[in-house]
Amino acid sequence: MDTIRIGMLGCGTVGSGVVTILARSGDDIAARAGVRLEIVRVAVRDLARDRGLPLSADVFTDRPEDVVAADDVDLVIEVMGGRGRAGDLVRSALANRKPVVTANKQLIAHEGPELRALAAEAGVDLMYEAAVAGAIPIIRPLKESLAGDRIRRVIGILNGTTNYILTRMTEEGASYDDVLAEAQELGYAEKPDPSADTGGHDAAAKTAILASLAFDSAVTDPDVFREGIERVTATDIAVARRLGYVVKLVGIASEVDGAVAVRVHPTFLPETHPLASVRLAFNAVYVEADGAGELMFYGPGAGSEPTGSAVLGDVVDVVRNLLQTVRGPLESTHRAATVRPMEDLTTQYYVLLDVEDRSGVLAAVAATFGQHDVSIAQVWQEGVGDHAQLVLITHRARESNLRSTVEALAATGGVRSVANVLRVESEGRS
Amino acid sequence: MDTIRIGMLGCGTVGSGVVTILARSGDDIAARAGVRLEIVRVAVRDLARDRGLPLSADVFTDRPEDVVAADDVDLVIEVMGGRGRAGDLVRSALANRKPVVTANKQLIAHEGPELRALAAEAGVDLMYEAAVAGAIPIIRPLKESLAGDRIRRVIGILNGTTNYILTRMTEEGASYDDVLAEAQELGYAEKPDPSADTGGHDAAAKTAILASLAFDSAVTDPDVFREGIERVTATDIAVARRLGYVVKLVGIASEVDGAVAVRVHPTFLPETHPLASVRLAFNAVYVEADGAGELMFYGPGAGSEPTGSAVLGDVVDVVRNLLQTVRGPLESTHRAATVRPMEDLTTQYYVLLDVEDRSGVLAAVAATFGQHDVSIAQVWQEGVGDHAQLVLITHRARESNLRSTVEALAATGGVRSVANVLRVESEGRS
Repeated sequence: MDTIRIGMLGCGTVGSGVVTILARSGDDIAARAGVRLEIVRVAVRDLARDRGLPLSADVFTDRPEDVVAADDVDLVIEVMGGRGRAGDLVRSALANRKPVVTANKQLIAHEGPELRALAAEAGVDLMYEAAVAGAIPIIRPLKESLAGDRIRRVIGILNGTTNYILTRMTEEGASYDDVLAEAQELGYAEKPDPSADTGGHDAAAKTAILASLAFDSAVTDPDVFREGIERVTATDIAVARRLGYVVKLVGIASEVDGAVAVRVHPTFLPETHPLASVRLAFNAVYVEADGAGELMFYGPGAGSEPTGSAVLGDVVDVVRNLLQTVRGPLESTHRAATVRPMEDLTTQYYVLLDVEDRSGVLAAVAATFGQHDVSIAQVWQEGVGDHAQLVLITHRARESNLRSTVEALAATGGVRSVANVLRVESEGRS
Repeated sequence: MDTIRIGMLGCGTVGSGVVTILARSGDDIAARAGVRLEIVRVAVRDLARDRGLPLSADVFTDRPEDVVAADDVDLVIEVMGGRGRAGDLVRSALANRKPVVTANKQLIAHEGPELRALAAEAGVDLMYEAAVAGAIPIIRPLKESLAGDRIRRVIGILNGTTNYILTRMTEEGASYDDVLAEAQELGYAEKPDPSADTGGHDAAAKTAILASLAFDSAVTDPDVFREGIERVTATDIAVARRLGYVVKLVGIASEVDGAVAVRVHPTFLPETHPLASVRLAFNAVYVEADGAGELMFYGPGAGSEPTGSAVLGDVVDVVRNLLQTVRGPLESTHRAATVRPMEDLTTQYYVLLDVEDRSGVLAAVAATFGQHDVSIAQVWQEGVGDHAQLVLITHRARESNLRSTVEALAATGGVRSVANVLRVESEGRS
C-alpha cells in the first residue's frame, strides 16, 4: 500500500478542519503514518455548494452509501453527526470491514456498545477521540495510559457553550438570558433552540462515553442523570462566590460500591479546584485514579481544526494498524457495573427559598429539613420584605431525602417558593 | 500465552509502586490486557532487605544480567535509573528481543535515538511514558493523539522539587535557602546535593524527550540550554508578582524557522497562563499545536504509585502488542530539525542591578542597553542608599544582545553588580 484512501461522510465544521489540516500537514502525517493519506470521496448533502476547500470537485458525492461500500475506500471518517442515518452508514462501513473514525458523540453515547461489537466482529478499528472534548486527548489516556490503574472518578467540563455562559455570568454578574442572547449572536449557542447545550444533552452524551471507558462498563446516554443550566441565576452565582465556589456545568462519573453514578448538572465547585479556573469555551477533564492520583486534561472542546486534529490523530492510529494488519485495543467491559440510581447520591446541596420576611419562618424551615434527615451547614437571609430569601447549604445528604425536603418545603408555612436547588461538590467523593 | 512474565530491574520507589498496583488491580489489568501479568524476576542490589511487598522471596536476584537473558521473561521493566549499567541492561534486553518499559529519563534523554533504533531492529517495543512527568499521560498524546497535527511549542513544569520550592517562596515570601532546607527535611529535595533538581538537570532530560516527540527529531540532553533556580531570590519573585507574573522553572521546546530551540530556566510566566496555577510538586505540560490549539496536561510528576501507574499503562500496551505479535508506532524523526543556538533566542528579560544611589546612573544604564540594541520596556528603582537597585524589563531582544548588554553593564559607571537576569515569557512565541 502506498496510499490510504479515505472516504468522508459529511463536510461541515469538523470535516473542513480535517481537510484543511491534512492539506497543510500531509507530509508530516505521511511520515508518521508510514503512508500517504488521500481523501478520495466526500459525501455531502448539497453538491452545488462551494466549500472553498483544497479538494477536487469530483470527490464529492451525494450518495454516502456509495462511500461506505466503495472498493477504493480503505477508511471511513464520519463527521455528519446525528444518529439514524449516520448510524446506518457506520454500520455499513464496519460490515464492509472498513475501519471508522467518528466525531459523533450522540452515536457513540447511545450505540457505542453495539458498534464496538460490530467493529470487533469485523476485525477493524472504531475510534472516536473527537467525540469527547474536541482536541483534548482523553479517550486514549483513559483506554491506554491508565489501563494499569483503577479510576475512581471523572469530572468534566465538557460543553463549551454552557461554560462560556456561566463564565460570563460569573465575571460580569450578568443574567442567564442576557448572556445567552449574546452567545447566540456570537455563534457560541444555537439559535433559536440552544437546549442541546444548555439542557446538558451534549455533556451527558460525553459523560456516558467517559464513564464507559473509566469503569470498563457499557454506560449509555439514558443512564445519565441530567439537569441543564437554564435555572441558574445571578443570585446563585453571587452566593457561590461568597462561599468560595464557582458554578460550573459538570459531568461526573464515579464508582461507589461497585456501581457507577453518572450525572450532568450545574454544581458549586470549590474555587481552588483545578476545574474552577477553566474559563469561557474551554473544556477540561479531571480524573482521580488510585495509582496516578489526580490528573487534568485541558484544551479547546470544539471547533473546526481542534476537532479535526483529534480525528486525524485517530486516523494515523488506524492507518498504523492497517499497515500491520491488526486492530487497536478493544474497550474492556469486564466490570459491567450497574448504574446507581440518582436517589442514592450523597452530596451537599444549596437551597434558595423565597420566604415571607417574618419571625418563625426559619424555625419552620429548619424543622422541615430536620424531619427529612437533611442537616443544615449554613443559613442566612438575603433581602427584605417581598424580596426576602433564605440561603441554605446542607451537610452531605441523600438525594432522595433532599427531594422529600424540597417537596415539604413548598408546603411549609412562610415559604413562598423554592427558587433553586443546586448540588455542591465538596472534597469527599460521591 | 496465558501469562506474560515480567522481569524487573530495580525495586525502589517506582518498582514498589508497580508491584503494589499490580497486586491490587491485577484482575482489571488482566481483563484489559487480555492475559495475566506476573512478575517472575526482580533484580535488586541488596537481597537481604525486606521490602514488604507482595512478592515471593524467590523472584529476587542480584544478577540483573540473568533477568534480561532469561527464557522465562517476556517483558522487561527497567526502574533502576542511571545510565551506564541500566543502559547496558536495556540494550541486552532489546538484543534478546524482549520489549522494554522504562521510567529512566536520563537514559532516554541521552541514548533514546540509539535505543529506539535497537528496538526497531529487534522488532520489539521500547516505551517510556513514566520518564516524563510521572503519572501524566504526555508521551502517548504527543506521539499518537497529535500525530495528525503540527506542534509549535511545548512548555512544561517538569520538576516537582523546584516547583515546590518556587511555590513556597512565592506564597510565603521566603528565601531560597530557607525553603530548600525545609524541602530537604521533608524529602522533597535530595540531601546533601539537590542540584539534579535545582540545577535543572532533571527538567532538561525531560525537555529533550518532549522536544524529540514534538518535532519529529532526535533531540538529546546536551542540546538543552540549562539554568537552575539557585539564584532566584525573594526580590525577583516579589518584582514578578507586582508585574503580574509568577516565577516558574520551565522546560520550553519550540520550533522557529525549521530549527528547534530547547531550554530550561526560571521564567517570569504571566499569572493568567494555565501553567501559573500549577502549585507545589505538581507537574504540567502545555502544548501549542496548529490544529488543536492550546492543550494542557496536569498531574503528579513523581511518586511511587503515580509513576508505577504510568509504567503499567505502557506494560498493558506492550502486552496487547505482544499478543498480536506487532509493535507499537515508532517515533518519527523525519523532520531531523537542527537545534537553534541559545544566542538566537528572542524573548523579554528581567534585569536586576545593584546600583549607586546617585543621579546619572539611570542614564548610563539606559545608554548601555541602547548601545546593544536592547530596548527597555519598564524601569524603576527599589531601595535607597547602599540597597539601591534598578529593576528593568526589556522588550523582546536577542539573547546574544542581552548577554553583551549584561557584560557591558558590569563595567558601567554607577552599577555595582548585575544581581540577576531572568527571561520573561510574553504572549509571543520564541
